[in-house]
Amino acid sequence: MASIEHVSPLAPKAFPDLPEIAGARFASVEAGVKYAGRMDVMLAHLAPGTVVTGVFTKSATRSAAVLDCQDKIGDDSDLGAAILVNAGNANAFTGKNGVHSTKAVTNAVAETLGLPETRVFSSSTGVIGEPLPHDRITAKLSDLSERLSADGMAGAAEAIRTTDTFAKGSTRTISTSNGDVKIAGIAKGSGMIAPDMATMLVYIFTDAKIDRAPLQAMLSELNERTFNSITVDSDTSTSDTLLLAATGQSGVDVTNDADFKACLHAVMLDLAHQVVRDGEGATKFVEVSVTGAATEADARTHALAIANSPLVKTAIAGEDPNWGRIVMAIGKSGAAADRDLLTIRFGDILVAEAGWVSPDYTEDAGAAYMQNASIQITVDLGLGESSSTVWTCDLTHGYITINADYRS
Amino acid sequence: MASIEHVSPLAPKAFPDLPEIAGARFASVEAGVKYAGRMDVMLAHLAPGTVVTGVFTKSATRSAAVLDCQDKIGDDSDLGAAILVNAGNANAFTGKNGVHSTKAVTNAVAETLGLPETRVFSSSTGVIGEPLPHDRITAKLSDLSERLSADGMAGAAEAIRTTDTFAKGSTRTISTSNGDVKIAGIAKGSGMIAPDMATMLVYIFTDAKIDRAPLQAMLSELNERTFNSITVDSDTSTSDTLLLAATGQSGVDVTNDADFKACLHAVMLDLAHQVVRDGEGATKFVEVSVTGAATEADARTHALAIANSPLVKTAIAGEDPNWGRIVMAIGKSGAAADRDLLTIRFGDILVAEAGWVSPDYTEDAGAAYMQNASIQITVDLGLGESSSTVWTCDLTHGYITINADYRS
Repeated sequence: MASIEHVSPLAPKAFPDLPEIAGARFASVEAGVKYAGRMDVMLAHLAPGTVVTGVFTKSATRSAAVLDCQDKIGDDSDLGAAILVNAGNANAFTGKNGVHSTKAVTNAVAETLGLPETRVFSSSTGVIGEPLPHDRITAKLSDLSERLSADGMAGAAEAIRTTDTFAKGSTRTISTSNGDVKIAGIAKGSGMIAPDMATMLVYIFTDAKIDRAPLQAMLSELNERTFNSITVDSDTSTSDTLLLAATGQSGVDVTNDADFKACLHAVMLDLAHQVVRDGEGATKFVEVSVTGAATEADARTHALAIANSPLVKTAIAGEDPNWGRIVMAIGKSGAAADRDLLTIRFGDILVAEAGWVSPDYTEDAGAAYMQNASIQITVDLGLGESSSTVWTCDLTHGYITINADYRS
Repeated sequence: MASIEHVSPLAPKAFPDLPEIAGARFASVEAGVKYAGRMDVMLAHLAPGTVVTGVFTKSATRSAAVLDCQDKIGDDSDLGAAILVNAGNANAFTGKNGVHSTKAVTNAVAETLGLPETRVFSSSTGVIGEPLPHDRITAKLSDLSERLSADGMAGAAEAIRTTDTFAKGSTRTISTSNGDVKIAGIAKGSGMIAPDMATMLVYIFTDAKIDRAPLQAMLSELNERTFNSITVDSDTSTSDTLLLAATGQSGVDVTNDADFKACLHAVMLDLAHQVVRDGEGATKFVEVSVTGAATEADARTHALAIANSPLVKTAIAGEDPNWGRIVMAIGKSGAAADRDLLTIRFGDILVAEAGWVSPDYTEDAGAAYMQNASIQITVDLGLGESSSTVWTCDLTHGYITINADYRS
């Protein structure tokens, strides 16, 4: 496995100070699933009254834990619940044994905590194709349950890391006339796990009061504009999981609260951006916005074509203001575009318009802009009113080194 | 522009000995469009009786020359014809000036050779967004027309290179009871053209006798299994062009001749493979076959998902038998797949079956196989009878170096 010597140059300055969420307790432990000398299993316990919602990878080769979560996520129960996550082994492409391991873990958690097995969710991230040594996890459950504490979320953010170069957390507090509502979340992603792809795992907790169905609808909608709008290398994990649990213990109903939705969006976007900022080998954070599209789907198709283009991503790595490659990406995307109506901007710099380079544009101005650590690319198609924004990183020698030079 | 110091390690041993095609004459010249000290313009003259067929990039931001060719390609005329190609400037994303430059070149060729302008086809490859200095090309036309010769095809293969590391040619001869029929073709592609994407240009000539419509149908069908089945980095040029001209001068009618079709297929596949073998930074030639699919479209979607996956391509570069990334690529492709029915092979080595690694597979065997310069990946989906094969190369530090480290 690749040794991670450096923290990403795009990492936030510090891990945030996560608040306690009433009704949620956390513990982490060294179980030795694969790694030695570090925490690799986290347990979250959620009090009765908690609703749990989630979104999952659309991969056709989903892992056993993802399939198990999907089976359980529609349950309207408000009994207590638990989330168990291990790092080091993804329990993916492990056939019937994988299903057995997931059941062994979730059943043991249910028994230890006195919960129905249908309220225990699990995730696994790490190598694929190797049997999950689930006994190493279940052997630690009584230890974990004894050490559950309200201030354990930061430790959980550490335990779910694989080769992430930094732990990822985010929080917002909403002040309402009925009192404060807190949201806090952790994530892992974009670290390479030999011999596997990057996996994104996200767990968000709030003390808001809200029914499962409207919370699920809100989560699914916001997911499209956050985690489903980031791309590192266009590859999709078999294990991507986002769980959102609302304990209700603030007593503040947020069912139609726009502030709550805005703050949940902010936490999700912050965590999604942190995943991109930890992209393998990333040296640039890139926002791609496409405006003036006939439909939102067209805008998104163009934005992802630009964000996933190896030629665009290598140009950004080389600090090359190569707008020709953006034209190419738009052309290949398959969505509607008229070459002679395109307007392209780098930040505020007008680069190209009306089918040709702008007369005021200079390569020097473009090259100077490309030296920033955060790059904004905006393309107006001149065809309609729809738009879409996605986020990505550059494609560097670091990506090749992490993914090719080290043997699994 | 990147300096190309080395010939691709995947290059054929030598350029083939291309036969003369009766009715086709060629000339090349140093016009100084961008490069100095090398040929950069080629002219092909085709005798009366020649039919011309073609296929072109599907990019929505096609260059002026491509749009002009597409306007002309359906013409059933059998007057003489000409093809003019320049390297160094793609005349793409150049607005109305680009259309003017293409017309200036094709009109001048028509006048010089005494042809209708509708029978003059042109291609441009090189930098985009810069005006084409078409006067440098038209100034050389009388020189070119005087030097047209039947043995000039190899020189033409040199003249259309941009940063290709080797010239590309292929030929086959079909023996029939009515005499021999010859096919010979040249191509350029996958060299990087700062600040532009790789462009693929292919010109094939035959002395076969056949009407335009059946030849066009044959070309379009074979194109799907050859040039449309290769991928270097999933990016699509604005200028990709394939022209096939049949002079008829062998007198042998090949309208329903299966041998002719097979040999045309062989020439096209050989040239397509040479383009992949010259892929930027390529060190491995990779064939991806997907069998057992419910539909051919599904098989192709899976095969391209594997061939375009940066994680699969970097694993191959690292000689890592990382079958987990192949499972990932199948999962993300969006086409039908059942994780537990997948069979994966590296060459003849059974790697995974029935949703898990094969009990007989060893990492040592996989790693030894990955040291080959040519890699075969076969995935059987176990769902149906359809299949698809595509070809690609690995993703290496060389690709990043060519595309990121050198400024345009």
